[in-house]
Amino acid sequence: MNSRILKASGHLIDSGLLSNILNTILSKGGDYRILSFSVGKTPVESSHLEIELLVEDNQLLRPIIDALKLFGIFEKEVPSVQFSEVDRDKHAPDSFYSTSNHKTEVYHNGIWYVVEKQRMDGAIVYDHLSSSFICTKLRDLKLGDKVVVGSESIRIFPPQSEKKELAPGSFAFMTNTVSSERSVDATVEALSKEMKHIKDRGGKTIVVAGPVVVHTGGSDALASIIREGYVGGFLGGNAIAVHDLELRFFGTSLGVDLKTGIAAEHGHSHHMRSINTIYGCGSIENAVKTGLLTSGLMYEIINSGIPYSLAGSIRDDGPLPETVNDMIEAQKQYSEIIKGADLIIMLSSMLHSIGVGNMSPSNVKTICIDINPAVVTKLSDRGSGQAIGVVSDVGFFLRNLEERLKQL
Amino acid sequence: MNSRILKASGHLIDSGLLSNILNTILSKGGDYRILSFSVGKTPVESSHLEIELLVEDNQLLRPIIDALKLFGIFEKEVPSVQFSEVDRDKHAPDSFYSTSNHKTEVYHNGIWYVVEKQRMDGAIVYDHLSSSFICTKLRDLKLGDKVVVGSESIRIFPPQSEKKELAPGSFAFMTNTVSSERSVDATVEALSKEMKHIKDRGGKTIVVAGPVVVHTGGSDALASIIREGYVGGFLGGNAIAVHDLELRFFGTSLGVDLKTGIAAEHGHSHHMRSINTIYGCGSIENAVKTGLLTSGLMYEIINSGIPYSLAGSIRDDGPLPETVNDMIEAQKQYSEIIKGADLIIMLSSMLHSIGVGNMSPSNVKTICIDINPAVVTKLSDRGSGQAIGVVSDVGFFLRNLEERLKQL
Amino acid sequence: MNSRILKASGHLIDSGLLSNILNTILSKGGDYRILSFSVGKTPVESSHLEIELLVEDNQLLRPIIDALKLFGIFEKEVPSVQFSEVDRDKHAPDSFYSTSNHKTEVYHNGIWYVVEKQRMDGAIVYDHLSSSFICTKLRDLKLGDKVVVGSESIRIFPPQSEKKELAPGSFAFMTNTVSSERSVDATVEALSKEMKHIKDRGGKTIVVAGPVVVHTGGSDALASIIREGYVGGFLGGNAIAVHDLELRFFGTSLGVDLKTGIAAEHGHSHHMRSINTIYGCGSIENAVKTGLLTSGLMYEIINSGIPYSLAGSIRDDGPLPETVNDMIEAQKQYSEIIKGADLIIMLSSMLHSIGVGNMSPSNVKTICIDINPAVVTKLSDRGSGQAIGVVSDVGFFLRNLEERLKQL
Amino acid sequence: MNSRILKASGHLIDSGLLSNILNTILSKGGDYRILSFSVGKTPVESSHLEIELLVEDNQLLRPIIDALKLFGIFEKEVPSVQFSEVDRDKHAPDSFYSTSNHKTEVYHNGIWYVVEKQRMDGAIVYDHLSSSFICTKLRDLKLGDKVVVGSESIRIFPPQSEKKELAPGSFAFMTNTVSSERSVDATVEALSKEMKHIKDRGGKTIVVAGPVVVHTGGSDALASIIREGYVGGFLGGNAIAVHDLELRFFGTSLGVDLKTGIAAEHGHSHHMRSINTIYGCGSIENAVKTGLLTSGLMYEIINSGIPYSLAGSIRDDGPLPETVNDMIEAQKQYSEIIKGADLIIMLSSMLHSIGVGNMSPSNVKTICIDINPAVVTKLSDRGSGQAIGVVSDVGFFLRNLEERLKQL
Repeated sequence: MNSRILKASGHLIDSGLLSNILNTILSKGGDYRILSFSVGKTPVESSHLEIELLVEDNQLLRPIIDALKLFGIFEKEVPSVQFSEVDRDKHAPDSFYSTSNHKTEVYHNGIWYVVEKQRMDGAIVYDHLSSSFICTKLRDLKLGDKVVVGSESIRIFPPQSEKKELAPGSFAFMTNTVSSERSVDATVEALSKEMKHIKDRGGKTIVVAGPVVVHTGGSDALASIIREGYVGGFLGGNAIAVHDLELRFFGTSLGVDLKTGIAAEHGHSHHMRSINTIYGCGSIENAVKTGLLTSGLMYEIINSGIPYSLAGSIRDDGPLPETVNDMIEAQKQYSEIIKGADLIIMLSSMLHSIGVGNMSPSNVKTICIDINPAVVTKLSDRGSGQAIGVVSDVGFFLRNLEERLKQL
Repeated sequence: MNSRILKASGHLIDSGLLSNILNTILSKGGDYRILSFSVGKTPVESSHLEIELLVEDNQLLRPIIDALKLFGIFEKEVPSVQFSEVDRDKHAPDSFYSTSNHKTEVYHNGIWYVVEKQRMDGAIVYDHLSSSFICTKLRDLKLGDKVVVGSESIRIFPPQSEKKELAPGSFAFMTNTVSSERSVDATVEALSKEMKHIKDRGGKTIVVAGPVVVHTGGSDALASIIREGYVGGFLGGNAIAVHDLELRFFGTSLGVDLKTGIAAEHGHSHHMRSINTIYGCGSIENAVKTGLLTSGLMYEIINSGIPYSLAGSIRDDGPLPETVNDMIEAQKQYSEIIKGADLIIMLSSMLHSIGVGNMSPSNVKTICIDINPAVVTKLSDRGSGQAIGVVSDVGFFLRNLEERLKQL
Repeated sequence: MNSRILKASGHLIDSGLLSNILNTILSKGGDYRILSFSVGKTPVESSHLEIELLVEDNQLLRPIIDALKLFGIFEKEVPSVQFSEVDRDKHAPDSFYSTSNHKTEVYHNGIWYVVEKQRMDGAIVYDHLSSSFICTKLRDLKLGDKVVVGSESIRIFPPQSEKKELAPGSFAFMTNTVSSERSVDATVEALSKEMKHIKDRGGKTIVVAGPVVVHTGGSDALASIIREGYVGGFLGGNAIAVHDLELRFFGTSLGVDLKTGIAAEHGHSHHMRSINTIYGCGSIENAVKTGLLTSGLMYEIINSGIPYSLAGSIRDDGPLPETVNDMIEAQKQYSEIIKGADLIIMLSSMLHSIGVGNMSPSNVKTICIDINPAVVTKLSDRGSGQAIGVVSDVGFFLRNLEERLKQL
Repeated sequence: MNSRILKASGHLIDSGLLSNILNTILSKGGDYRILSFSVGKTPVESSHLEIELLVEDNQLLRPIIDALKLFGIFEKEVPSVQFSEVDRDKHAPDSFYSTSNHKTEVYHNGIWYVVEKQRMDGAIVYDHLSSSFICTKLRDLKLGDKVVVGSESIRIFPPQSEKKELAPGSFAFMTNTVSSERSVDATVEALSKEMKHIKDRGGKTIVVAGPVVVHTGGSDALASIIREGYVGGFLGGNAIAVHDLELRFFGTSLGVDLKTGIAAEHGHSHHMRSINTIYGCGSIENAVKTGLLTSGLMYEIINSGIPYSLAGSIRDDGPLPETVNDMIEAQKQYSEIIKGADLIIMLSSMLHSIGVGNMSPSNVKTICIDINPAVVTKLSDRGSGQAIGVVSDVGFFLRNLEERLKQL
């Protein structure tokens, strides 16, 4: 029987981490003996666990420990971190440590270093000059980079191990269950308070949005929310901009008149004429400057001066001059805009929401509004388990949110 | 080659009936020759078609003609109707004519008789005394009833063959496509005008509703719409009443506080305590009379005096005293309440909506609001092709509808 | 500051119960101090918790304790149970204890009694003669019945507090997450093994099924599974039987030819002619006896002699003679058939599945296959949290399950 | 009263075009008088229509005629086409004719010219040298290009106006209704025959696929279908390739073991290690050449030598070396591969399917398999009305398709 002594600290019980730890061991074919467990006597105290992991097959040790790390487990006797050099650009050493989106520390020369630029799916590069560990995408690895290999010297702090604010009715209280059978009033209420709170203390709320926002009649509300200063960055694609412009220039969205619901003449013609109008100006920004575009979502975004990025995709018409057609560049822009976000609001765009989820640390509050319950499940399956899901009509939702924000 | 000469009249082209006729012949292995076709020169004129149906296999004649009848085809040489007697209660003769939900006529002694009490899935019984043809459910057939057999002497008038009102923006203009990518504002607008119009001329609007109306926070709006006299009959089940009562007595729905969105104590307890309170009063009506129930959906229904029926189901808790547990009786009550309806509004209840669809003639305007796009597809697959589908959050929808009705 | 000392025992950590306990206290405005916590050192040992619940407002004490009971908490100093008498048939005393679907015990005269006939949404009646406590539906309460009031003398054993079997790949390992992005092969594998295991040891598997089983081409597979003796009871409605009969008599389902996918003549006619044929025989059972019905789902059910119940609903055509039109009677039959079930398989029927969920104790393994991810969410929202959800095409699923069972 | 004489020819009735024409006139506020209508007497004969469009308001004339063009209407007196020059790169003249995806002709110097490279959302450029009209994306317009303006000299041939093959059970017979309540056996049957037929006559079937194909266990089947030579081009994104590689290298998909359904260790690690392995080889093609990758979807695609394109997106990990990160380039590659396709099979990828829909002429047979009924609705709303929708589990679907193809 092989064994290893493991430790964990923090809010292990109320967070459910301890149950995850024990279940993970058993489900992966291991066994355990709890050596000591001091439970936090009161809600503010931490718990401390020392546990012996037991496996018959030595080969199971590493995978089980690696899986446990996501729940904040670290090894009692931590060796100093091992490095291996990148042998060709973009190619990590075989046993590189692949990062999660949780806060991570590396044990090096007797000290725990916090990894910088944390995101999921990266490698950890050690920078000699600054003595720092930096989370780095595989494609950004350079020949000779020193990359952390193995996971023995790593520990992770899942957000659950830190204390939630627990004022009844607060944002933290919304659970991430997904149902179309709930009133969203309470969600609108909690979200509006959170947005107000973030705005008041100079924090940062990011909006990720798809074209359904325009089709369902929510773009005026979102434009107003941006005008009022609640949004610190906007992420979308070519389509939401095109449809917002179509709405401003022709009063239609996908060719459907938003007031009457009747399909106007030939929808795609409006759509393309809007793009053509912008091509004539050179850019959306020029259309604003020259007074051609005087209202709407793109107008407010540009007028407010908040950073924004429109990521291109294979389904784009045009695309608009502002659309970023190089995905590497688009990911850079997105990542830059997300930096330091307190709250991310995802509005009916699976594609961009998963993209944003990939780049965000797990401690950023995230809420995802979509009429399709599958979207939040997909986010969770891809590691963005922090996302709260709301199944509703996004047009109605935004109009209620706008109204509620005005009343605050 | 066998052939038969068939005729049709009415708005055959703009309704799409003619294309359905020709395609049906071909897809079922037949062929045709158009003998004469006089097209309505202007929108108000009717078209007249005389067509020869050709089939190699004589056995195909009958099925093809039967299928064509749904598009208004009748045979040039119509024999007088044949009857066969019911040989035991509930059992129609083998070749009984099974009705559709379209207006139907029977050719008898040289005259076309309109079938009374038209609904789908019935047999047609000839009543000697009154010389009338009555659509009758199989289970209501009595020994000795004279039942129409075969379809040679039948003709059908699908609603498409009659002229739609075509004022832009009118209700008739809503198509029955189903999408979550449309703004529902236009739908709310058209529906509210239709409801106002029906109310003003003393018509009848029926509401069919499921418990999601309460869960999503739409019951106050629906209660208000009923109070304002827009609804002439209410159809639901045990659950919507239980959850409305729970909301009035405890402020929760399925145990979730509708204001804060937080699960209160033990949801099912509220739910059951509400039922118990009604059991204590003897009935919901008594709870209203004794002043225990003073607001909400059930209060307004009872207070307004409109007919209503709560159909039981296998999933019921309680059930409430007003719930009708015998399905034969419940279908009777539903059917009675629907009689003469101008408009049926179906709110997030697949079960009751399909039930109502089964009993309604095809010329009753029907609109179905559900967050699940599959519901309208199911209605159509079951013969209720007239239903217009709206994919939205029913709570938001009702609140917008209430507001719009107040402004009219 | 008011306080109360509470206790819990069992698999508190790996089950997540302890984290639920602590979070529930905080979320409901309480505070706590852990007095003692002895953790089960190994997977087979139990943990023991003694905790002090603290609240400022005395009125919070009861609701918090009641909520905690669902996680297995009981009070250290338990008073003997209090009763109150039923003052009129069907009407419980105001403060009656409303049951959950978990195993429950009542403290009476110094002894803990296990409640019999456990199900959710009942009251607990004390039977003097047999000295037993019986879970009773409100509608079955009789004048003079002694009903348990308050929750001080109650303790609950949620299934999580008991040990799961944890052999990798076993049924217990399936989680209740719901996603359309998973391969169902593993589910078919685990389910087939579980069914084989239950059959071999003389256990009981119940199938609940909706008409989609027939529409999607799964009825032959299900019929075969029943013929092979894997099913100990069948629960459905009128529609699945009608469509199965339509398939046997006409080769169509809802009028669509299952082989060619083409709508045959007039679908509803087949549907109604099938019902009429059964009306002619008097019953489905007679149709089997007289050799008219020789294959299919209903044939195998009747031929195998397993108990079955077809619950009526407002949307029924016919209904068939075997359909139970009185919902009180249908619930009785369902409840009788479920008794002692080891496994319940729910196939694409939200209505009947919720009905069955309401009647089942929480320790019965339950799996729900539906193409709509919302169905499992609804089951969970209604207290059937034990249901494992699988998002798939039920026709394909059943055919794979049948094949896999044959290979075992 | 203003009027204009319009004409149309072809299969106007069975296609439903004539009813669309008349309804469109009325719904847009016009009126009509049918001057002559000769109906095709037999299924193979064409019909000919001459109709007078009447409008009170002269301004309505153009939009109504433009809308009618989509149904094959052209003007009796057609003026020669007008051009206007591009005044800056990418910017069409204001009144440029915006193309549909239907076959289009331009009237120039007394002759009707067929537009080349037809696709939706383009402008039509006249090339002096070759005397040809070429459909051109706005972004490809160059200063000085002669662009068709107005729609007076344009006529369109919607695919409905041409005769469908009508052999019962054939592919053409599948309708584009979307339901989860149908057996897909008939679809598998018709699709397999169509694929076989296309293969036998040297035609071209294109597959568009998303990563759900891998998650649901369908990639082996698809790989086999490719190996057997049924596929002439493959379109996807980075994710399907990554997950297919993960499956080959680790046996998991999104970290879930496809055999046991259990989440292996750390899913994203496998995912990233697979990308890293390919980075080590330089490309997927190298991994095949060096014998590292020996089976699976990407292996069969590369080994068979069919053209393929992996379009990048904002949500990509890696991306893989073969992924095309520039969307302009990716659209070019897609468009090149689609050229001349007879059949396009879309498998659970909304993003890539809409992209492909945008580029495809409307007469290419298109089938879309997805578990989410909303996907086909979205395709239709974006102009790809020819797509047939199938709601099913794509993993099961592909395995059945593979089996059926083997039996042919």
